[in-house]
Amino acid sequence: MCNMEEMSDLSIAQAATLKPIREVAAEAEINPEALLQFGDYKAKIDPALLDAPAEGQGKVVLVTGISPTPAGEGKSTVTVGLSDALRLAGEKVMIALREPSLGPIFGIKGGATGGGYSQVLPMEDINMHFTGDFHAITSANNLLVALIDNHIHQGNELNIDPRRIVFRRVLDMNDRSLRSIVSGLGGPTEGVPREAGFDITVASEIMAIFCLAKDIQDLQDRIDNIVFGFTYDRKPVTVKELGGGGAMTMLLKEALKPNLVQTIAGTPALVHGGPFANIAHGCNSLIATQTARRLADIVVTEAGFGADLGAEKFMDIKARAGGFAPDAVVIVATIRALKMHGGLAKDKLKDELDTETSISYLSEGVKNLERHIDNVRGFGVTPVVAINKFTNDSDDELNWLKAWLEERGVKAAVADIWAKGGAGGQELAEAVLNTLDEGNNFKPLYELEDTVAEKVEKIVTTIYRGDGVEFTAAAKRQLKTIAENGWDDLPVCMAKTQYSFSDDAALLGAPDGFTITVRELIPKTGAGFVVALTGAVMTMPGLPKVPAAMKMGVDEDGHAVGLF
Amino acid sequence: MCNMEEMSDLSIAQAATLKPIREVAAEAEINPEALLQFGDYKAKIDPALLDAPAEGQGKVVLVTGISPTPAGEGKSTVTVGLSDALRLAGEKVMIALREPSLGPIFGIKGGATGGGYSQVLPMEDINMHFTGDFHAITSANNLLVALIDNHIHQGNELNIDPRRIVFRRVLDMNDRSLRSIVSGLGGPTEGVPREAGFDITVASEIMAIFCLAKDIQDLQDRIDNIVFGFTYDRKPVTVKELGGGGAMTMLLKEALKPNLVQTIAGTPALVHGGPFANIAHGCNSLIATQTARRLADIVVTEAGFGADLGAEKFMDIKARAGGFAPDAVVIVATIRALKMHGGLAKDKLKDELDTETSISYLSEGVKNLERHIDNVRGFGVTPVVAINKFTNDSDDELNWLKAWLEERGVKAAVADIWAKGGAGGQELAEAVLNTLDEGNNFKPLYELEDTVAEKVEKIVTTIYRGDGVEFTAAAKRQLKTIAENGWDDLPVCMAKTQYSFSDDAALLGAPDGFTITVRELIPKTGAGFVVALTGAVMTMPGLPKVPAAMKMGVDEDGHAVGLF
Repeated sequence: MCNMEEMSDLSIAQAATLKPIREVAAEAEINPEALLQFGDYKAKIDPALLDAPAEGQGKVVLVTGISPTPAGEGKSTVTVGLSDALRLAGEKVMIALREPSLGPIFGIKGGATGGGYSQVLPMEDINMHFTGDFHAITSANNLLVALIDNHIHQGNELNIDPRRIVFRRVLDMNDRSLRSIVSGLGGPTEGVPREAGFDITVASEIMAIFCLAKDIQDLQDRIDNIVFGFTYDRKPVTVKELGGGGAMTMLLKEALKPNLVQTIAGTPALVHGGPFANIAHGCNSLIATQTARRLADIVVTEAGFGADLGAEKFMDIKARAGGFAPDAVVIVATIRALKMHGGLAKDKLKDELDTETSISYLSEGVKNLERHIDNVRGFGVTPVVAINKFTNDSDDELNWLKAWLEERGVKAAVADIWAKGGAGGQELAEAVLNTLDEGNNFKPLYELEDTVAEKVEKIVTTIYRGDGVEFTAAAKRQLKTIAENGWDDLPVCMAKTQYSFSDDAALLGAPDGFTITVRELIPKTGAGFVVALTGAVMTMPGLPKVPAAMKMGVDEDGHAVGLF
Repeated sequence: MCNMEEMSDLSIAQAATLKPIREVAAEAEINPEALLQFGDYKAKIDPALLDAPAEGQGKVVLVTGISPTPAGEGKSTVTVGLSDALRLAGEKVMIALREPSLGPIFGIKGGATGGGYSQVLPMEDINMHFTGDFHAITSANNLLVALIDNHIHQGNELNIDPRRIVFRRVLDMNDRSLRSIVSGLGGPTEGVPREAGFDITVASEIMAIFCLAKDIQDLQDRIDNIVFGFTYDRKPVTVKELGGGGAMTMLLKEALKPNLVQTIAGTPALVHGGPFANIAHGCNSLIATQTARRLADIVVTEAGFGADLGAEKFMDIKARAGGFAPDAVVIVATIRALKMHGGLAKDKLKDELDTETSISYLSEGVKNLERHIDNVRGFGVTPVVAINKFTNDSDDELNWLKAWLEERGVKAAVADIWAKGGAGGQELAEAVLNTLDEGNNFKPLYELEDTVAEKVEKIVTTIYRGDGVEFTAAAKRQLKTIAENGWDDLPVCMAKTQYSFSDDAALLGAPDGFTITVRELIPKTGAGFVVALTGAVMTMPGLPKVPAAMKMGVDEDGHAVGLF
């Protein structure tokens, strides 16, 4: 049972004994030629050098969740614990997970490497620099902007409008002061002044491209397709026209190889790529998923935020791009979080409630879960609910929820994987295995032939259950630009608050009778989707008053302290 | 003989056969426990886990050069070729070199990994990301600025004057548009607006600190000592007062371990750290040099720019900080470059000149070399001149120069190491070995007890042979601040043009009758020196009209193309 107050994830991680990564690789039948070690416990895998068949056949289990709450749901923890449990059950399993972003670590956020006894290791390294993938993405991204500004400075042959450059610099740092800047100040030798800004690396189009590219050639093609801005006469300008896409690809060529690590229990995990789940599609690289499918019979992977965002994008963007079908979807829920969806305030989470009150919150909050279950079924994939157990969940609550799920014919299991690792996830593993045996009837929500507006309508009415979509005047103009430029056949990447089915973060549970306002539509022609912005989306976080960085350091043995 | 037109360094590098880095390590008697592999051909060494004695006894050969010219001198090439030659002669030798900066690669600059058959490999990797050290430095640097801006945004308890923040953000990119920016725009939730800017990573104080730190604790202490700005009442504010030094140290803990690679001939090389030679001291990390001294009998290392800057700083800053004495100094010169110092224009370098004309340029230009020779002798260390042979050097020219050096009792050798590797450097190796047998009487130029002004005076009059120093009004105010804050006992890091002994880049050869103007004095209390700025010093390069990036890419096998 998860009890974060008693033991830190870092102390559990540091106490664990790791197998040499060569052993992990050997057990996963990865031939040594394909392995590039980074120290003793991390490695990159070169998919081109793998002996395994080129086309992966492994089944894909997607782990997603209810709409997130401040109570925490533990999707990564379930992803890891479920995989360990499947391995305990004798399955040949591999995890595919996102790499964590460095910046938020210094703010308030924990790592993205699971928790308790369901973690991927070495967590210190994975959370700090890892094998340098995000730094390579930062470099490639910023090379492009340096080339753009240099082009304008050197005479602007392409007639780029400095006011209409839509591609921003990035840093993997929470640095609010860089959100909005004026660059190129200081006179004629110091560039051309313009309004500019930085996003966090994980919010960049390069990150999205990195995670959707099939191979290095596809990566280069996607980079060349980026529309980074517009000319003074409003024509889109691509990287291909500017040049430099080759150099950007070169900067990314090593990073594109997936990273192999292991769980505390020794299960192999590919941790690779990590786009934001709002401005981008929020799951690990397609290359990692496909490589895992070549090496294992079952691949457990995760999508960011709740199922309305993460799972929808996984189905409509990633699975479509990769030409595969997810075979089961695990929806992670916790009693705490469901009670919050039912109206219980965060500061009351630890209060002792009588059973009746508890159940009343739960029976209201479960409507959030219900909608996610229906949505997953709508994709033709069977959902399995993982009830991630926390310390003060009562048996009454757990039993009520299990009965509620059974009534609706939903497979479900209580997972006690934070405290017990794979041993606490055996019931869940069984439910997942049963589901995989059943097969799936996967189909995406919309067709690529639908217009962007139609795609948004379908997502809003079918997945969010809103009454409809309102496009602002700006968004309507952009729909026109999209049609004119032939981008209407791109999938849509919704940028919406993760806390609600609606675009109002305060509407928990299963809200009805709302419309979604699309403020802006941003074509990401490299990534290959159109971002639909609803409400303000944060692409560069800030630091809190007392940043977590303030208590971090290195002990006498050179180990990190205060990391989590 | 160096003939860059015929073969590219990249094609030679890619055709070379590398030994597995484990073998290189084993030959260098590096115990496996201390080795952290990064792929098959790169590794980090953990000095704490080395079996070798803690105190290194290896002799140090510093490779420096005449004042650089556009003709190119080839210091790195000589460093590598000399080391290969020493190894051929049966010596236990190790190279300590700087890591190249990523940004300039996309502009016009070649790599910093040597050339021809005297290169360190794998050059693609070393020139691109390598083991991620510079990215870690970038992250640590930018975390500090994010913490500073966040502190001001959150209420500015320390009373930091946003106009007097002297610590800038960095990127490892040539991006002129970031030299001068206004950050924090967009209203009260987006930070506090102020003038700011980015330097290239190698110009950062963190890089200088990284290269002067004895160990991780010293690194943390130096970071804590950084004065990043001043309060509204002009008091210096340190990282220790702000907090976050521990997190910055944590970000650097793995990077601080030196990187092991090899030359084309298989000689072990530690390539680690790379501060600018103007705003900083311009040599590889002290940790790499000291680690090499534990593992080898002879360590060949290099300092940036000409001997007036690189060697002086090596002696007065690095050797002093490390408590070691250089045992020999190799001054690299080329016929071409000396002729340029004698007045031959760059575009005439390839013209056929009659012997008399050639020698007349040479006999004038050699005065530049002469002054560097005298300066090295002044430090109590014996110089050896390496004449780095180029394709169209004539025998007459080479013989004239050898005779001139012999007359003055200077050890010298022609090195044909670009074309022949170590085999072309045997004569040079012999001269160096003779010098090492003689021992040295090393003493730095100035005492730490001298004031900063006195130190600058000594450098200018003794090394540059100027008539004296003029401090601007601003510099005089800064001298006062330095004295008041107790920073007068820090060594001085001169930031001067590398092209001339004077502060006028156009005065080649051995100019006389000049004074040096110190415009500004910048205390780098973390690095532990005071930078004396003479003239404009570029800390963020720009890209040329047609950046080298435009012809770079990846071929079908995933190899870099167009890198050099």
